[in-house]
Amino acid sequence: MRAVIPYKKENAKSRLSNVMTKTQRETFVELMLKDVIGCLKEAGITTIDILTPSPKEVEEGYGVSIVEDEADLNEALNSYLENQNEPILIIMADLPLVRPEHIQDIISSDEDIVIVPGKGGGTNVLYIQRPDIFRVKYYNSSFENHCNIACREGLSLAKYDSFMASTDIDEPHDIVELILHGEGLAREYAENNFGKKKGGKGRVKAHPLQHSQKSLSS
Amino acid sequence: MRAVIPYKKENAKSRLSNVMTKTQRETFVELMLKDVIGCLKEAGITTIDILTPSPKEVEEGYGVSIVEDEADLNEALNSYLENQNEPILIIMADLPLVRPEHIQDIISSDEDIVIVPGKGGGTNVLYIQRPDIFRVKYYNSSFENHCNIACREGLSLAKYDSFMASTDIDEPHDIVELILHGEGLAREYAENNFGKKKGGKGRVKAHPLQHSQKSLSS
Repeated sequence: MRAVIPYKKENAKSRLSNVMTKTQRETFVELMLKDVIGCLKEAGITTIDILTPSPKEVEEGYGVSIVEDEADLNEALNSYLENQNEPILIIMADLPLVRPEHIQDIISSDEDIVIVPGKGGGTNVLYIQRPDIFRVKYYNSSFENHCNIACREGLSLAKYDSFMASTDIDEPHDIVELILHGEGLAREYAENNFGKKKGGKGRVKAHPLQHSQKSLSS
Repeated sequence: MRAVIPYKKENAKSRLSNVMTKTQRETFVELMLKDVIGCLKEAGITTIDILTPSPKEVEEGYGVSIVEDEADLNEALNSYLENQNEPILIIMADLPLVRPEHIQDIISSDEDIVIVPGKGGGTNVLYIQRPDIFRVKYYNSSFENHCNIACREGLSLAKYDSFMASTDIDEPHDIVELILHGEGLAREYAENNFGKKKGGKGRVKAHPLQHSQKSLSS
């Protein structure tokens, strides 16, 4: 089996632009990518591809292979799947809370497809035993898309239930989850740049610290 | 062991008031409560207390006991714990995605304390083997509070990792999770009153349907 991480650094995570500068967002996605790669390696996955339109954005020394494709996410992933003949784990780069145990659980499943939902109908992780007969459809409620595709192809599907693996960091209110429950490089970065505002009877929120806010307005 | 569900219906879920009328919110919390009670029963829990300042707000026929206490949540729960001599499962009423399997996993743990984090630092479920030596502290990052209390008391603690059990329905963007992943009464109510707005590359959001919006402005 092999894992593939779609990745794009330039102007990444635009939905965080109210709380992070472009430079901060680019640093942050790189740290999240490192956390995800580290997690996969710790889970025993030795073959990892980074699928990216911009290979120069991926630092050397990660011990991964780079697959360049300038097409959009779905087209690039489906071209990638067409060329594979072993089980494929597609994992998003914005999952700094995912742990090696989750990955081990997922790849030891007997189901044809294992899906980890993201918040708001996304797909955080997708494990595909037979890449020759499954095509992906990210965006616009991809969790439902992927369940429907599996059903249409007569493939068995397991939904993997984990708060940690389902927490993608995409909107400002996600950052507090990383600070509270994370432990890697992205968590350290978030903790250095955000404070926690206690929520009374509501939820705790993360807010940019003053030194970060300064750079946000600059 | 026994389970306790803190519950208050009147003007509940004020953080949903942008998308639901007071009457809708009160109906909705009642349906969520029914879902949670049903889940506990299906998990084999036969002794269930509803801890409430307003017993008249709890319909008859649920097959539960009512414990009246007008004190605030922490004071009421700590008084309740003082009077118990068996393991206690505290579960919030706004967890319509929690499944019997989660409850069975949690109550079969060997740890002194099992905690299911809520979004934004909350505590959705708290399993306390020894209610004589543990006091709760909800609100203001209660997940951290409860971890710290367990540590201070020298109690072992497990964090239970489940997207479904960690999804409390407290803010408008939570409703889409209920529609996408739920299956009970509260889900049906949400589906009848909300539509899903596809998010392009972002998350799917739930929005009140026209007939609901009308009543919201009335």
